[in-house]
Amino acid sequence: MESEFLSWLRARLPEHPRLSLGPGDDAAVLNMQPGAGCVLTSDLLSEGTDFESPPGDWGKVGRKALAMNLSDLAAMAAQPLAALVSVLLPRIGGLAIAQQIYDGMCPLVAEFDIPIAGGDTNSWEGPAVVSVTAVGQTTEHGLWLRSGARPLDRVLVTGSLGGSILGHHFDFVPRVREALLLNARYRIHAATDISDGLSLDLANILAASQVGATLDTGRIPISPAARRVARTVGGTPLEHALGDGEDFELILIVPPDEAPRLLSDQPLPVPLTQIGHIIPQPGLWERQADGSRTPLQPRGYRH
Amino acid sequence: MESEFLSWLRARLPEHPRLSLGPGDDAAVLNMQPGAGCVLTSDLLSEGTDFESPPGDWGKVGRKALAMNLSDLAAMAAQPLAALVSVLLPRIGGLAIAQQIYDGMCPLVAEFDIPIAGGDTNSWEGPAVVSVTAVGQTTEHGLWLRSGARPLDRVLVTGSLGGSILGHHFDFVPRVREALLLNARYRIHAATDISDGLSLDLANILAASQVGATLDTGRIPISPAARRVARTVGGTPLEHALGDGEDFELILIVPPDEAPRLLSDQPLPVPLTQIGHIIPQPGLWERQADGSRTPLQPRGYRH
Repeated sequence: MESEFLSWLRARLPEHPRLSLGPGDDAAVLNMQPGAGCVLTSDLLSEGTDFESPPGDWGKVGRKALAMNLSDLAAMAAQPLAALVSVLLPRIGGLAIAQQIYDGMCPLVAEFDIPIAGGDTNSWEGPAVVSVTAVGQTTEHGLWLRSGARPLDRVLVTGSLGGSILGHHFDFVPRVREALLLNARYRIHAATDISDGLSLDLANILAASQVGATLDTGRIPISPAARRVARTVGGTPLEHALGDGEDFELILIVPPDEAPRLLSDQPLPVPLTQIGHIIPQPGLWERQADGSRTPLQPRGYRH
Repeated sequence: MESEFLSWLRARLPEHPRLSLGPGDDAAVLNMQPGAGCVLTSDLLSEGTDFESPPGDWGKVGRKALAMNLSDLAAMAAQPLAALVSVLLPRIGGLAIAQQIYDGMCPLVAEFDIPIAGGDTNSWEGPAVVSVTAVGQTTEHGLWLRSGARPLDRVLVTGSLGGSILGHHFDFVPRVREALLLNARYRIHAATDISDGLSLDLANILAASQVGATLDTGRIPISPAARRVARTVGGTPLEHALGDGEDFELILIVPPDEAPRLLSDQPLPVPLTQIGHIIPQPGLWERQADGSRTPLQPRGYRH
């Protein structure tokens, strides 16, 4: 299966000016901007855990594995450069699955100019596993970290949240372009992408920055999917927006004098919404209409 | 399991001057030599396919997964910089396994100064999977490719070959230092590491370079393990040296005026042996004592 797949793959992968070697040699060589930092992230998806067994569409699985990694690069405002894709597939039918996985990645490869530089193709008797490493580079505008939030900063999010299980977790477009644009034009103190859930991912920023936050929960942009999930499986739409995860939107921590400009400019094709404030006291809080605070337990999917 | 493991891992990973972020953020940032190419390679190992189920020693599995990737970097004479390690482990007992896998990597991390920059830790109901991506950089002396072999070049190998199943496939030391030293001091036209078997890996060089080779099979350095395997499972020691694979030695294609110097210098702690010649006609041949040639079928482990 492996050598047949490799032949199929080599014929499909276009030569790329950034890659001086394709997946044929022992390793691939990626030409980077001199002086840029090399940004590295990996995600692994497995059948029956991260996607259904068997999934209805292997192309969606491939697309998601690559898109999750691109979202991690976007979370730091890094420019994507290349990806390595390792798969572990059933012996029977594995070749067709491998081709569907790579076909599912192709539109993202083209859209974000992130050629597949190599990987490893294996077969076994078990369920399918897809492991992707994405490589990016820092830009002249630096990187966003989780640790940069400061008291009085504003908490903003892109898009709308919750209910991604209805389809968004497969279809989402990683916020790469949005992150690069914001980083070039605005001061952002800290950021992350929402993979585990708004409240849990924000809590990671708070812990890394040693601060707390209050959320104006009435302002959280709730997706139509969160409302639909609430009707069918219970919970409130807000609970789904706070904890569902896999929104792959950005949480942006913005200095108080920059947030109004960003909110009035609305420079992205997707809405930017202010949902809270950073405070010195640790913890995550819900701010009531009367100004009082109640603790908000971070909830979400802990990988 | 995952968050507990991450805490354990973060406490163990030393800060590294080359990494400006640890595995805690969305991605890691690796500082490279300005102008160097970024060399990327991935290998994935699975329980029951690449190692026994369960293995006697998870540390050996971790060590091998990292060492294989280092061997791929050595095959191109790239300098190792960092590794990303993704694991997929059983829910029950997975934390202890993860710790053993990383503990097994630690000596290589120290010996080759290749910090673990991140990865992804997952659990499921299935067998264990370890996926490693190694990142290296090109040096001022350039890279070795498979495609550089030319007629009249000599075929050399490091070390001795065959029978790695008896233990060498776990214990081998990737030829990173040897490759960097040879690349700095000698002209090497092409190279690869022996992962699938001498004859098959050499055939890959021949195909990439559009040449052929004759082997003086009497000169191939046969390991004591190849002789032991031949006694117990059959075949000749030479057949095991030609086809067993996972020797993780280097095949070096050396210009005719450089080979004598290299062979007389013997600059490595491990022997360098000339085993054949590159010829213009495609194919792999065994050269008899009387100078006649017979075809040699490449054999080995096709991943």
